[in-house]
Amino acid sequence: MNDIQVMNRAADNIRILAASMVEKAKSGHPGGAMGGADFVNVLFSEFLVYDPQNPKWEGRDRFFLDPGHMSPMLYSVLALCGKYTLEELQQFRQWGSVTPGHPEVDVCRGIENTSGPLGQGHTYAVGAAIAAKFLQARLGKEVMNQTIYAYISDGGIQEEISQGAGRVAGTLGLGNLIMFYDANNIQLSTKVDEVDAEDVQKKYEAWGWKVLHINGNDVQQIRAALTEAKAESMRPTLIIGDTLMGKGAMGPDQSSYENKVSTHGQPLSAAGASIAETIKNLGGDPEHPFTIFPEVEAIYAKRRAELEAIVAERYAAKKAWSEAHPDLAAKLEQWFSGQVPAIDWAAIQQKPNQATRAGSATVLGVLAEQVENMVVASADLSNSDKTDGFLKKTHAFVKGDFSGAFFQAGVAELTMACICIGMCLHGGVIAACGTFFVFSDYMKPAMRMAALMELPVKFIWTHDAFRVGEDGPTHEPVEQEAQVRLLEKLKNHKGKSSMLVLRPADVEEATVAWKLAMENTSTPTALIFSRQNINNLPADTDRYQEALQAAKGAYIVNEDANPDVILVASGSEVSTLVEGAALLRADGIKLRIVSAPSEGLFRAQSKEYQESVIPTGSKVFGLTAGLPVTLEGLVGSNSKIWGLESFGFSAPYKVLDEKLGFTAQHVYQQVKEFLA
Amino acid sequence: MNDIQVMNRAADNIRILAASMVEKAKSGHPGGAMGGADFVNVLFSEFLVYDPQNPKWEGRDRFFLDPGHMSPMLYSVLALCGKYTLEELQQFRQWGSVTPGHPEVDVCRGIENTSGPLGQGHTYAVGAAIAAKFLQARLGKEVMNQTIYAYISDGGIQEEISQGAGRVAGTLGLGNLIMFYDANNIQLSTKVDEVDAEDVQKKYEAWGWKVLHINGNDVQQIRAALTEAKAESMRPTLIIGDTLMGKGAMGPDQSSYENKVSTHGQPLSAAGASIAETIKNLGGDPEHPFTIFPEVEAIYAKRRAELEAIVAERYAAKKAWSEAHPDLAAKLEQWFSGQVPAIDWAAIQQKPNQATRAGSATVLGVLAEQVENMVVASADLSNSDKTDGFLKKTHAFVKGDFSGAFFQAGVAELTMACICIGMCLHGGVIAACGTFFVFSDYMKPAMRMAALMELPVKFIWTHDAFRVGEDGPTHEPVEQEAQVRLLEKLKNHKGKSSMLVLRPADVEEATVAWKLAMENTSTPTALIFSRQNINNLPADTDRYQEALQAAKGAYIVNEDANPDVILVASGSEVSTLVEGAALLRADGIKLRIVSAPSEGLFRAQSKEYQESVIPTGSKVFGLTAGLPVTLEGLVGSNSKIWGLESFGFSAPYKVLDEKLGFTAQHVYQQVKEFLA
Repeated sequence: MNDIQVMNRAADNIRILAASMVEKAKSGHPGGAMGGADFVNVLFSEFLVYDPQNPKWEGRDRFFLDPGHMSPMLYSVLALCGKYTLEELQQFRQWGSVTPGHPEVDVCRGIENTSGPLGQGHTYAVGAAIAAKFLQARLGKEVMNQTIYAYISDGGIQEEISQGAGRVAGTLGLGNLIMFYDANNIQLSTKVDEVDAEDVQKKYEAWGWKVLHINGNDVQQIRAALTEAKAESMRPTLIIGDTLMGKGAMGPDQSSYENKVSTHGQPLSAAGASIAETIKNLGGDPEHPFTIFPEVEAIYAKRRAELEAIVAERYAAKKAWSEAHPDLAAKLEQWFSGQVPAIDWAAIQQKPNQATRAGSATVLGVLAEQVENMVVASADLSNSDKTDGFLKKTHAFVKGDFSGAFFQAGVAELTMACICIGMCLHGGVIAACGTFFVFSDYMKPAMRMAALMELPVKFIWTHDAFRVGEDGPTHEPVEQEAQVRLLEKLKNHKGKSSMLVLRPADVEEATVAWKLAMENTSTPTALIFSRQNINNLPADTDRYQEALQAAKGAYIVNEDANPDVILVASGSEVSTLVEGAALLRADGIKLRIVSAPSEGLFRAQSKEYQESVIPTGSKVFGLTAGLPVTLEGLVGSNSKIWGLESFGFSAPYKVLDEKLGFTAQHVYQQVKEFLA
Repeated sequence: MNDIQVMNRAADNIRILAASMVEKAKSGHPGGAMGGADFVNVLFSEFLVYDPQNPKWEGRDRFFLDPGHMSPMLYSVLALCGKYTLEELQQFRQWGSVTPGHPEVDVCRGIENTSGPLGQGHTYAVGAAIAAKFLQARLGKEVMNQTIYAYISDGGIQEEISQGAGRVAGTLGLGNLIMFYDANNIQLSTKVDEVDAEDVQKKYEAWGWKVLHINGNDVQQIRAALTEAKAESMRPTLIIGDTLMGKGAMGPDQSSYENKVSTHGQPLSAAGASIAETIKNLGGDPEHPFTIFPEVEAIYAKRRAELEAIVAERYAAKKAWSEAHPDLAAKLEQWFSGQVPAIDWAAIQQKPNQATRAGSATVLGVLAEQVENMVVASADLSNSDKTDGFLKKTHAFVKGDFSGAFFQAGVAELTMACICIGMCLHGGVIAACGTFFVFSDYMKPAMRMAALMELPVKFIWTHDAFRVGEDGPTHEPVEQEAQVRLLEKLKNHKGKSSMLVLRPADVEEATVAWKLAMENTSTPTALIFSRQNINNLPADTDRYQEALQAAKGAYIVNEDANPDVILVASGSEVSTLVEGAALLRADGIKLRIVSAPSEGLFRAQSKEYQESVIPTGSKVFGLTAGLPVTLEGLVGSNSKIWGLESFGFSAPYKVLDEKLGFTAQHVYQQVKEFLA
C-alpha cells in the first residue's frame, strides 16, 4: 500500500470503529463520524502536536470538537492514538463508561471540551486561541506557540453563536486558529440546502477569515489545506471540507447508504443499512469490528515517535527559556496551576455607600494590578457594568496586540461567555465577563456548560433588579436571581453546587464576594451587583471584617436578644431591611437581620450553624426584589416574603421603590402585619 | 424652503424632540435617535402604509424597531404622525406613562413590538415577513401585500441572532422585508470599529440579501434606496445607512458633539454637550423644545391625506375581493381575530402507552388538518420532537412557495422562537415551535419577551428529563422545568401568570395540554413532553374525560378513602407513582395520587379546590425528574421530595431509572421511610 492507501485505510478503520460503537450501543450518530474520519485521521496522525506522555503539557495544540454527537469519530481516532482501549469503545454510551454519548472534558484522554449543544464548541476554540495569544504576549513564542484546531459541522455553522465566534476571531486576527467545517449537506432532519442557502465561504471572508475549500475526504487536499492554514499568521482559517455523510455505508444488497439523512442519528442497521456489509466494504471483518489494523497501528506508532522528538525539542527550548527567564518560568507554573496569587483583600479601600457595581470596580482595579493572568470581558457595557475598573488599568485586545488584558466582546453575551469558557479550558488564564443581569438569560446555555465542566469562569452581572428603573421591564431582572440559583441547587458530578452565586449587600460584601470568586477554582461563580447606591450595612467593629462572614452564605448582620422575627434578604434589600428595622425597633420589636448572599454556601454549612442563623420554625420575614420564590429555600415554613411578582416598569427607581413596596415604611408595615 | 429643506427640518424636529425627551427624563439615549431621524422621517412621511383611522388594519405595513433604546426617535416620529401628544413625550420614562424607556407593544400607537434586548426586534420582522408570505399564499395579494420594515443598529448586527435572521430571510427569499441598518460606528462603550471589523455588506450578501449602501442622513438617498428595495421581490433588502451619532449636537461653546460615544446612553447635558445650543443649532427654540414646526406638521398632514386615499383604494379592493371570495374573507376575519376554530378534541384517538411526544404528534396531525392558519416550526429536530406529526400533513416553506405550513428553522433555537413571536405580532397566524427541552435554555430571552408581550406562542419541548438517556448530561434537562415554571410564577402586566406551563402525564393529558394551549390566546404556552413511552394513567371511566381535569392544573388521578399520604408528580413521574402505589397498597397504605401538569393553573383555582386536592399540612410525597425544588411550591411543609439533584449521565434510560431512583420499588421505599 502506498501512503495514501494506508491513510485511507486508517480513515476506514475509524469509520468501522465509529459505526460499530453506535451499533453496539444501539444509539448514536454514525453518519457524520464516518464522513469526518479522513480529516481527523490526517490531523491526529500528522499535524496535532501533543505529548503522549504528558497530556496536560501547556504547550500542546488543542482540538475542540463542536458537534459532540460525532463523539464516535473522536473516541475512535483517540483510540488509534492510544488514549482509549477497544474495550472502552465498546462501552460507548453505557453507565459509568469513559465514552459517554457526548464527549465530556478529559484532557488526559485528549478530550479538550464537553460538547453537545451545537455552536459552543468552536467558540471555546476562539477563546482558547485568544488565551494562547494573551499568554504568548507575556511568556513568548518559545513556550506558547500552540495551534488551536476546531471542528464544526453544518449545525454549528447555523447556530447563532457562529456570528459572534466568526466576528471575534476575524476582528482579533486569530492566526493561531484553524477550523475544519465538515460540510456534508446533511443535518438531523433534512438536507442542509433545504434550510440554508447561505454562502459560507463568503460569510467567513466577510468576518475576515482565510477560507479554503477542499474535498474533505481527500487525504492530500486535507494535508495541503492544513499546511497552508498553518502558514497563515494574521487570520483564522476555515477549511471547508465537502464530505460524504456515512462514507462507506452499505445496504444489505450492497447498495450505497452514503449521503442519507437517515444515517445521521441512529445505528446504521436502524437506518436500513447493513453494518456487516458496511464493515466489509470498508475492509474490515464484521465478526471483529473492534480491531485496529496493523498498518494503521504502524502509522500512529510512527507519529508517536515523531511526537516524542518534537516534544523533546520543545522541552529543550522551554528549558533554555526557563533559564534565561526564571521570572517568566515561575509565572508560567503559577498561571497553569490555576491558583490565584495572594491578594491583600483587607487592604482594599472601598468608598462606603456606593453601588455594589462600583465596589466591584474597585476590586477589579486591584485585580488588574495584582493578577497578571486575568482577562476581563464585557459585552459592550464596560462603562456601565463597571468592568472598566479593570479596563482603566490595562487596555483592550486588538488585532496583532494582546498585551492588554481586556476583551471588548461587542454585543454578544453568549459568545463572550463561551470565549471565557474557552480561555479556562486552554488554561493559564483567569476569565471574567460582565453584562447586565437581565442578559444572563442569553448566557444560560454557556453557564450550564461551564457548570458541567467545573470551570471557574466569573460572571459579573450588574443592574440586578427593577432598580434599573427608567429602562423598564425588558431590562429589569425579576426571575433571574431564582433562575441562576437553580445552578446553586444543581450539583455537579463531584457532588458540589454546580455554581457559586453571590449577591452582596454592600461594597464591603462586594469585596468579600470577589474574594470568594477568586478563591473558587472548581466551579463558575456568579456575582450579582446593584446599579444603585446602597448604604453600607451597620457594623459593630469593621464592616469588611464582619462581611467576611459572607463566606458562610448567610450571617447575622445584627440582632436584639430574643428576636421576635428574623429579617432575611440578599443584595440591596438587606439595607432596606436595616432601614425598616429602625422603625420596628422604635415600636419595641426585637429583630435579627440576616444577609444571605448565597443560599448554596449557606446550605453547605453545618446544620448547627444554619440553625444558629435561621432556626427551624422561627418567624422569618424575607425581602427580595426578585420573585418571592427566590427566598423560599431560606425562610422556612413560618414566614412571609415580600417580593416582586410581576415584570417591572419604566420609572425612576425611587418611584418604583415606593410603588412596588421596597421602602423602610413598607417593611415596617409588612412585618407588623406578619407579627399581628 | 424646498422639499429637501423641509424634510431636513422634519428630521431636525425629531432630533429636537428626542434629545429633549431624554434631557427631561434625565435618562435615555439621545445620540442614536438623532442620527436615525432622517430615515424614519422619510419612511413614515413617504413610504409606510397604514390606516390613520384603523391602526389594527391587517393590511398595514409593519415597522419593527430592534434597538429599543432608540425609543425617543420612534415616539417622536409617531408624535408627528399624531400617535402621541407632546405632553406624552414629556412623560418619557415616567411611572404609568405611555412612553416607557423601551417601547412596549401598542399597535394603536404604532408600536409593533416591545424591544430592548438587541437582535430580537429585527428577527420578529423576519417572522412577520414569513407570516405575510404565508397569508398571501392563502388569501391573495389583494389583501395581503404589506411590506415589513425593520430598523437595526450596530449592536443588533453584532448579536448572535443576526446569523439566524439573516440566513432565514435570505434562504426563504423574503422580498417583502426591508431593513435599515443605522451604521453610526458608535456603540455603548466604544466605537464599532474597535470591536468589529466585519464587512456587513458582504455578510448579508452571503446570506442572500440585496444590499444597498447610502448616506443615512441624506433624504434623497434614503428615498432612492427605499424605492429600489420596494421593487425587489425575491430577496430581502438591507439598506446600510451611514449616519452621524448625535447629529446636530453641540457643546456650550458651539463645538460639534457629533460622533461621540458619550452621547449614546445619557442626556446630552450629562455628556458635556449643551441642549440649548443643540436645539438652536437644529433650528428650534430652547425655551419651547416640545414643539412641532408648522412646516413639519404640513408634511405629515399631507401624508395623512395620501394615506387616506391609499387606504380607501385598498379597502375598495378588499371589498371586491370579499365579494368574489366570501370563504376567504371569512377566513381572514377568523384568523385575525386570534381565535381558534372549534376542534373536536374528544374525537382525537391516541394510541395508549406512548411517549407524550408521540401523543403531541397525534394532536399536531389533527391541527394540521383543522387549523388552516397554524404554522409549526422545528429547529432541525422535526423527526425527533415529533413536530413531524404536523409536517407529514403539509410541507415546509421554501423560497417562492409558502403554500406549506411548516418552518424548518435549522439549528437556531433563539431565532426560531423570535420568528414565532414575529408571526404572532403580525397577526393572522398561530405559531408553534419545537426542540429538545434542554435547549429551552437558548430560547429564554425570547420566552421572556413573548411573556411580556402576552403573545400566544406555543413552545413544544420534548425529551423532558434524564430519560434522554444515552445522549448524556448535555442533553438531559434537570433544572429546566423549575426554570420555565419561574415564568408561571412571574405575572404579566395584566396580573396573570406570564406563561402557561404544562407537562402532561400521559398521551391523553397530552391531548388536553394541547387543548389548553390552543385555547390560551393571551399568554405563551410551554408544552413539555417525554421522549420515552409512558403507561396511560388508570381511569375509572374514560381516561381522556378524566384528563380534562388537567385544566385545573392538578387533580386527583385516584385515591383511597382517608389516604395516609398524597403522591404528587407531573409528567412521566406520575406513572412511576402509580406503579409504586401498587406496592404500597399491597402493604395496606392508603394513597391519593395527584397529577400536577401546571402549578400555575393550580394556584389560579379556588382555595377550596386546592385544599380538596392537596390539603394544607397533609403528608405529601413528591417525585420529579427535575430538581427537587420543581415541586416545592406544590407539596407544602409536611413533605418529602425525591428529585434529581445533579446533572444527568449517559446511559440507557432504564439503567438511569434504576441508578437514580425512579422506579416503583424506589418510590415504595421512599414513601415507607417517609411514613415511618
